[in-house]
Amino acid sequence: MLRLYSFLPSGNCYKARLLLAQLAIPYERIEVNILKGESRTPEFLSKNPNGRIPVLETENGQFLAESNAILFYLSQGTEFFPQEPFARAKVMEWLFFEQYSHEPYIATSRYWISILGKENAYREALQQKREPGYAALSVMEQHLTNHQFLVSDRYTIADISLFAYTHVAEEGGFNLASFPAIQAWLQRVQAQPRYISIRENR
Amino acid sequence: MLRLYSFLPSGNCYKARLLLAQLAIPYERIEVNILKGESRTPEFLSKNPNGRIPVLETENGQFLAESNAILFYLSQGTEFFPQEPFARAKVMEWLFFEQYSHEPYIATSRYWISILGKENAYREALQQKREPGYAALSVMEQHLTNHQFLVSDRYTIADISLFAYTHVAEEGGFNLASFPAIQAWLQRVQAQPRYISIRENR
Repeated sequence: MLRLYSFLPSGNCYKARLLLAQLAIPYERIEVNILKGESRTPEFLSKNPNGRIPVLETENGQFLAESNAILFYLSQGTEFFPQEPFARAKVMEWLFFEQYSHEPYIATSRYWISILGKENAYREALQQKREPGYAALSVMEQHLTNHQFLVSDRYTIADISLFAYTHVAEEGGFNLASFPAIQAWLQRVQAQPRYISIRENR
Repeated sequence: MLRLYSFLPSGNCYKARLLLAQLAIPYERIEVNILKGESRTPEFLSKNPNGRIPVLETENGQFLAESNAILFYLSQGTEFFPQEPFARAKVMEWLFFEQYSHEPYIATSRYWISILGKENAYREALQQKREPGYAALSVMEQHLTNHQFLVSDRYTIADISLFAYTHVAEEGGFNLASFPAIQAWLQRVQAQPRYISIRENR
């Protein structure tokens, strides 16, 4: 059985949990409390030397880190990853956009405010996250104004990846009121078969 | 013919230039001087709404952004991308590692010091980049101590991606003297057929 090393409030871990639920793949979940340093123990570092969650352990004991690499691995040969070469590359474009231009601003702000509860201590750093975070949301809004989903107008792992932190962006102080296309897209994602909420304990 | 929108000193653009050279694919290169705002013009934003280089234009006029998505696209079906599903996922793991844990520290430091020439103005910000930058190099060093290349002991786009900014890390103030496995790997990459230097104007 697959094993997922995961921290429940993490959007990066939720990506894998959501796809596994939608693929109806059973797996064992092992909670790693990053707030207690559990992702930096020698034992965990033997699974991922970069000391980050999530990590997927395959049935023959191989370890795979990086949330979007896990999405890629699990989605191969399924409806969640396109067949056509250029569409596949566009999925990758959105996944790298997510990790470089979106997550470091929107997810990190949520982490400081809503996970650590240290909005005051991080006030200045949070301020620096706002402009690039809103820029990432604007790129999404522009695309979603004319498209149902991020790639090929079909629900793929690109949507799962971007959904994870966008739908809780307000927990990081980002207001989605002026992003109507994003809001409509969030609802389309939430209407997908076998959808689970980030707060669901599975 | 493929078209690459590229800025010569950029390591992200060099990734695509290196793979195109090694695949012996002819292409038209269009220089975009990001220092003069040329990646933020309305015309360029119509190609990549995120306003970043590189961008690949396909023969039928489609646009693909994100350096590692371009590597993925160009390498499909070639020796530079593995066949085996888990090896493919490990390539992806390194590509996301590169964009999240390596590039924002090592490439950004090089940009401030060697491209903008503003080491003094960015002194404090550069200081904050050092620890995570060295942590990324340590993850690579640990792996390369026991492996010839990053995945499956074969040269893949994972090596191209990580090579781009690692081999010029010293231009960002990172000293590679205590990373002998990285140094040996850099030489193995440079010995690959059809290798071109980042400074080569093609």
